[in-house]
Amino acid sequence: MQTAVIAGVGPGLGESIARTFADEGCRLALLARSGGFLRDLSDDLPTEAVAVPTDLSEPDEIEAAFETVRDELGPVDVLVNNASVASWTGLLETDREAFDRAYEVGPRAGFLCSREAVRDMLGEARSAPESRANPGGTGDGDGGTIIFTGATTSVRGRKGAVGFSMAKFGSRGLAESMARELGPDGIHVAHVVVDGGIRPPGASDDADEYLDPDAIAETYWRLVEQDRSAWTLELDLRPHVEGF
Amino acid sequence: MQTAVIAGVGPGLGESIARTFADEGCRLALLARSGGFLRDLSDDLPTEAVAVPTDLSEPDEIEAAFETVRDELGPVDVLVNNASVASWTGLLETDREAFDRAYEVGPRAGFLCSREAVRDMLGEARSAPESRANPGGTGDGDGGTIIFTGATTSVRGRKGAVGFSMAKFGSRGLAESMARELGPDGIHVAHVVVDGGIRPPGASDDADEYLDPDAIAETYWRLVEQDRSAWTLELDLRPHVEGF
Amino acid sequence: MQTAVIAGVGPGLGESIARTFADEGCRLALLARSGGFLRDLSDDLPTEAVAVPTDLSEPDEIEAAFETVRDELGPVDVLVNNASVASWTGLLETDREAFDRAYEVGPRAGFLCSREAVRDMLGEARSAPESRANPGGTGDGDGGTIIFTGATTSVRGRKGAVGFSMAKFGSRGLAESMARELGPDGIHVAHVVVDGGIRPPGASDDADEYLDPDAIAETYWRLVEQDRSAWTLELDLRPHVEGF
Amino acid sequence: MQTAVIAGVGPGLGESIARTFADEGCRLALLARSGGFLRDLSDDLPTEAVAVPTDLSEPDEIEAAFETVRDELGPVDVLVNNASVASWTGLLETDREAFDRAYEVGPRAGFLCSREAVRDMLGEARSAPESRANPGGTGDGDGGTIIFTGATTSVRGRKGAVGFSMAKFGSRGLAESMARELGPDGIHVAHVVVDGGIRPPGASDDADEYLDPDAIAETYWRLVEQDRSAWTLELDLRPHVEGF
Repeated sequence: MQTAVIAGVGPGLGESIARTFADEGCRLALLARSGGFLRDLSDDLPTEAVAVPTDLSEPDEIEAAFETVRDELGPVDVLVNNASVASWTGLLETDREAFDRAYEVGPRAGFLCSREAVRDMLGEARSAPESRANPGGTGDGDGGTIIFTGATTSVRGRKGAVGFSMAKFGSRGLAESMARELGPDGIHVAHVVVDGGIRPPGASDDADEYLDPDAIAETYWRLVEQDRSAWTLELDLRPHVEGF
Repeated sequence: MQTAVIAGVGPGLGESIARTFADEGCRLALLARSGGFLRDLSDDLPTEAVAVPTDLSEPDEIEAAFETVRDELGPVDVLVNNASVASWTGLLETDREAFDRAYEVGPRAGFLCSREAVRDMLGEARSAPESRANPGGTGDGDGGTIIFTGATTSVRGRKGAVGFSMAKFGSRGLAESMARELGPDGIHVAHVVVDGGIRPPGASDDADEYLDPDAIAETYWRLVEQDRSAWTLELDLRPHVEGF
Repeated sequence: MQTAVIAGVGPGLGESIARTFADEGCRLALLARSGGFLRDLSDDLPTEAVAVPTDLSEPDEIEAAFETVRDELGPVDVLVNNASVASWTGLLETDREAFDRAYEVGPRAGFLCSREAVRDMLGEARSAPESRANPGGTGDGDGGTIIFTGATTSVRGRKGAVGFSMAKFGSRGLAESMARELGPDGIHVAHVVVDGGIRPPGASDDADEYLDPDAIAETYWRLVEQDRSAWTLELDLRPHVEGF
Repeated sequence: MQTAVIAGVGPGLGESIARTFADEGCRLALLARSGGFLRDLSDDLPTEAVAVPTDLSEPDEIEAAFETVRDELGPVDVLVNNASVASWTGLLETDREAFDRAYEVGPRAGFLCSREAVRDMLGEARSAPESRANPGGTGDGDGGTIIFTGATTSVRGRKGAVGFSMAKFGSRGLAESMARELGPDGIHVAHVVVDGGIRPPGASDDADEYLDPDAIAETYWRLVEQDRSAWTLELDLRPHVEGF
């Protein structure tokens, strides 16, 4: 049984990932700002689950959240970096605070959450970085999976969205770097380019123009299950009718 | 029950795809030059299977092969374009015949096989292109899946391999074009970048440096099963220890 | 004084490249099917120039053309692979002949012309490939420049243009492979992605939506002049108003 | 006569850009932390030049620096975002401060400097963003050029360099977004992938394995001079002997 952390959970893709991974037998930790939604969702999951209200732009809160997860569910095996802030403004319309926030919730939260998770995956939680010489030493240390949720903007800088373009590219660069570093340690890092709009809650199941969040979550789960002899770093996902 | 054509089958990835797809319940048609190997493999599959000895560099043989497949197994639902000729020579060492052959077995065979398969997928086999206005008309016409086997060289022109670089890039361009054209018709076109060496028959299962062909085939099957609200055009695969 | 071959010359980009390179002092050889246009243009250039009517889909004609160029102007220093056939048809609407022709005029002509030019650049014209051990030996052998004219479709497979997508991707793969092989020999291979429509003859100079062919040609010349300590393999060009 | 700001100037590429642009007739403003080097260099330039000691990780200092530039040299026409901090450490070895600093000196400084420069280029300096409806109104407003110095890591996440990979990808995403937004306003945004080591001061001119910083600077200047009908967003540069 694996412990999965979803960083960035709302009523859309985050919820679908949580439900899919729980159906596959994972213990779930849900991190986001809105405690009420998290608690309702965690109560509704078929496996052990904890809601951990967290402002992902705050490093201290991320650190505390992972301590809670370890206390409640044990070491982390799977992490989904699913948070981002879309700053849909052009160069002159974007203030420094908005640009910083796109960074903090995007690549920096991805970095901080990954660092916490990787310590568990390498069996190093609560130990100093220096001890890494023996990566399989103190915890379970049997590897793990980290998935980043990307977007069209991850591979194509978007007009009128300077902060979002910076942040999504930045997270992709981080994911690629981590994949190259951590693969040999048995940690699978993947980046999924969600190239289209995700079906909003309430929209018809027949709305062909949207990605079904359950279908995205299914592909995320396949990444978790991939044999380590043939791991995917990046894949794209879009509706069959999408013009791209 | 789906009918799958594997164009390019040898004792490696082609065989693994055939076995995996048969285990998932597909009828199989195996196309390659070496009749003996094809027949032994088709006899060994748990589902209906036909060996169709075919020189994929010959347009007439491709056309005849698909006629045989339709006669024996019915319309095609899944096609895997798995053939390529690696012309590992530099510019001055490559003669025109070798360069042509890389084209003929690579992008041109992919084009010709896809054209045959798509006619079935759109319900148009044996009917004129003009009738396409009613794509679901005469055959099953309920869509399908076409997967191209790519390589590192599909995305990075390789020093000392002019023909192979041309051919693998060319097939990728073809796949992308087809994905954009055929997605709205319910045909999923995917291109898999196999970024590393595939474990040769006889090598140890523990040889970490190779991609396990069964693991690749498993990912191919997941592409066939993807929900059409979230289709992948491209993904990469490599061993966890691969430096890339 | 350098000798430049433009393979694929019409009243547009090809003509602009010829005029720009002649203004910079190059001897010019113009290759294309339409002899009349070539002769008028070569007569109008300020430097020595030869019109060599050539069907670039015919290997023998390419070989003969380069013999003519060597006889008339000496060894080749610069080659621009500027020919392509746009096969703007979808999968079922494209016949084998059209697909083959896209290959022959695109990547294959690029390969054959490059092979001829590189023999000159390495000082190997008329000598056997085996003699390459001494690349600077018999001719001028002081390197050279090869530029491929790419298009939007070189990096993005285009819906409804299977042959063109295959051919433009294929040429790009060839260019990348050649760049890696030939750079150490002092031959600069570059691929220019012309991402937009080139201003047609007769259109107003003020038409912002087009690329000015003279401006493209200017960038081509800068590639010829780049110091070999900082060579460009690929760059894109588009009008400032282009949405992309 | 154009006014150019080089943000990030040391004895290497920054100095070469400054000297090259001055030779072409630009007024120069040099921004970096080390005041002494800046002053010596600015004194040595053949055109009007100001040294503006600036910590590019500090938003207030950037704002003040551009005020100084405007007071001393007038509105900015050209900006080169040349600063970056290479955080060459892996995931667990990188602390939050180092990761933040890679962001602040890289994409954030690029954003802040670009915002200042674009206000000048659009003729909006000292006016509120809301007034942009008339972009050519109050200043010279005749466009400009912004160049980002990228690296191999801008397009390929580097093992063991999580902060640098995030920052270089992030800057590239920002540059692409800005190029799409600002091109129609006559502002040319370009991103140069410097794919190799730049020759360090003191190394031999014959050292083939390095990029000559003067040669890089020459290409930067060509970008400034490109006709707006054929602008380059991205190009790569590497030594002719580079294996890549």
